[in-house]
Amino acid sequence: MAVYTEVAEDDLAAFLADYDLGAVTAFKGIAEGVENSNYLLQTENGAYILTLYEKRVNAADLPYFLGLMDHLAEKDFPCPVPVHGRDGQALRTLCNRNAAIITFLNGVSVHHPGPDHCREVGAGLARLHLAGKGFKRERPNDLSLTGWETLFDACEARADELQDGLAQELSGELAALDEAWPDDLPTGVIHADLFPDNVFFLGDGLSGVIDFYFACNDFFAYDIAVCLNAWCFEADHSFNITKAHNMLAAYRSVRPLSDGELQALPLLARGAAMRFLLTRLFDWLNRVDGALVKVKDPREYLQRQRFHRSVSGPAAYGLM
Amino acid sequence: MAVYTEVAEDDLAAFLADYDLGAVTAFKGIAEGVENSNYLLQTENGAYILTLYEKRVNAADLPYFLGLMDHLAEKDFPCPVPVHGRDGQALRTLCNRNAAIITFLNGVSVHHPGPDHCREVGAGLARLHLAGKGFKRERPNDLSLTGWETLFDACEARADELQDGLAQELSGELAALDEAWPDDLPTGVIHADLFPDNVFFLGDGLSGVIDFYFACNDFFAYDIAVCLNAWCFEADHSFNITKAHNMLAAYRSVRPLSDGELQALPLLARGAAMRFLLTRLFDWLNRVDGALVKVKDPREYLQRQRFHRSVSGPAAYGLM
Repeated sequence: MAVYTEVAEDDLAAFLADYDLGAVTAFKGIAEGVENSNYLLQTENGAYILTLYEKRVNAADLPYFLGLMDHLAEKDFPCPVPVHGRDGQALRTLCNRNAAIITFLNGVSVHHPGPDHCREVGAGLARLHLAGKGFKRERPNDLSLTGWETLFDACEARADELQDGLAQELSGELAALDEAWPDDLPTGVIHADLFPDNVFFLGDGLSGVIDFYFACNDFFAYDIAVCLNAWCFEADHSFNITKAHNMLAAYRSVRPLSDGELQALPLLARGAAMRFLLTRLFDWLNRVDGALVKVKDPREYLQRQRFHRSVSGPAAYGLM
Repeated sequence: MAVYTEVAEDDLAAFLADYDLGAVTAFKGIAEGVENSNYLLQTENGAYILTLYEKRVNAADLPYFLGLMDHLAEKDFPCPVPVHGRDGQALRTLCNRNAAIITFLNGVSVHHPGPDHCREVGAGLARLHLAGKGFKRERPNDLSLTGWETLFDACEARADELQDGLAQELSGELAALDEAWPDDLPTGVIHADLFPDNVFFLGDGLSGVIDFYFACNDFFAYDIAVCLNAWCFEADHSFNITKAHNMLAAYRSVRPLSDGELQALPLLARGAAMRFLLTRLFDWLNRVDGALVKVKDPREYLQRQRFHRSVSGPAAYGLM
């Protein structure tokens, strides 16, 4: 929610000299994303987002993220399209940071998604999974089992500062996930962070998906499990089975789910809850008092995880 | 540089129901201004800025600021225009805050203004002063002599934490300003904060002025003095007389300056330096470690103030 790097006009002009975008008509820092600096860039040719990748993004992953957006856009998936310079390159350097320009996507994200939004997201996620086929690069999910262990090691000693008994509960859950995690589900490109912030709507229809900076290759069904966590719980922590039903039904209407994928959903949803629980816990334990980036409460995901642990099977998600 | 208040879609929809702006096509928090929350709002009708006024803005002043933009725009001065709802009101409430929509102004602000920019700003400031004539509301400058005393009282005991001897130097300077401050210069509406951030250019030409939230009634020449401080010093603290000459010559080509105004410039420039020195000192003494809003170094303005104290007359600003 901040702009970390200020871009002076001479630096911007020198950067844009490598593109054919016409004269700049507006340039404003925007409060989108928490990892990078993003600017709204308007030129005679249209509207764009200029992103400067800050230190938390691994530079080696950028060709994957940008190449994926190119690939998805070619398949008519509604996502930002990287703008290539005259030399064909989309990834450049600005103010000593990796930087890229992508097209501006119309639409508005929703803070309180309803059942109709969940239907749209389910269908959109399936379209994304199909559109990702044929993408040549690979990137492992560094926030799956191994990544969780690393994060937990960094948090274990102080986890109980957040809640008594948390370290023990997470330790047990990690062991269970490690023991039961599947290895034979259909895999491909997943978004891995498809929260309401990252989905735009125009009216009731999904108009675009943004922020592919956690995208990787993993189980398609894990991406669904992320969405069940991100879209189907109410503010009072209750699970909205109507939203989940809409999401899954719409997904299956575009990309059918195998029985193995369906059966794995509760476990994958526990894993997805673990991923967000641990990154939030790490941020919470390492928070800076007074910083404007609000640290989110990790316990939301503990409650979601307990819900997924309590269900007897995928019927709990409204499957019929 | 932040969005303090998040606006959910239902709140935005209810707010926009009072306007005739058409369907929303984009809504993004922007990192502009340090006092308020600003959003880029795009609708079928065009682009706008939605501002939620946070606690540091005095609600009683908002009709002055919004009315002034209406007045200036009517006089063809390039500034944002408040959008009025169907009931004629521009000032409304959103998320328990005062809020208004203004038109989006094309242009880019410059971080490192050159002599040509200073010429444009001089002419633009004079146009603003002429365009402000006939505006019926009045607002005293609460960051002039009395306001400085209040700020200094709040900072005096700890001022030397920033620099040894600072409290004594400021105390002496405040007494000198109080003693010599003029009371008979031409007055009218001034911007009072015309820093490079608040001026947009398209190519080399000034395309617009924004952020009227310090505007007030005071000496026109004081506004020039603010600009001498804000635009004419180099990063190495040297004073660029070419920039000052361009600014003043362009100003005078639009609105002639009386001899009294010219003679008062060094003193007014000391006062303007005091205003920014003291607000920065207050923010510096009350800073929060780790906050994303960077606290600016007050000492820049101490050096500028010393420069203005050292000059023998307005010729130091490139007047011929």
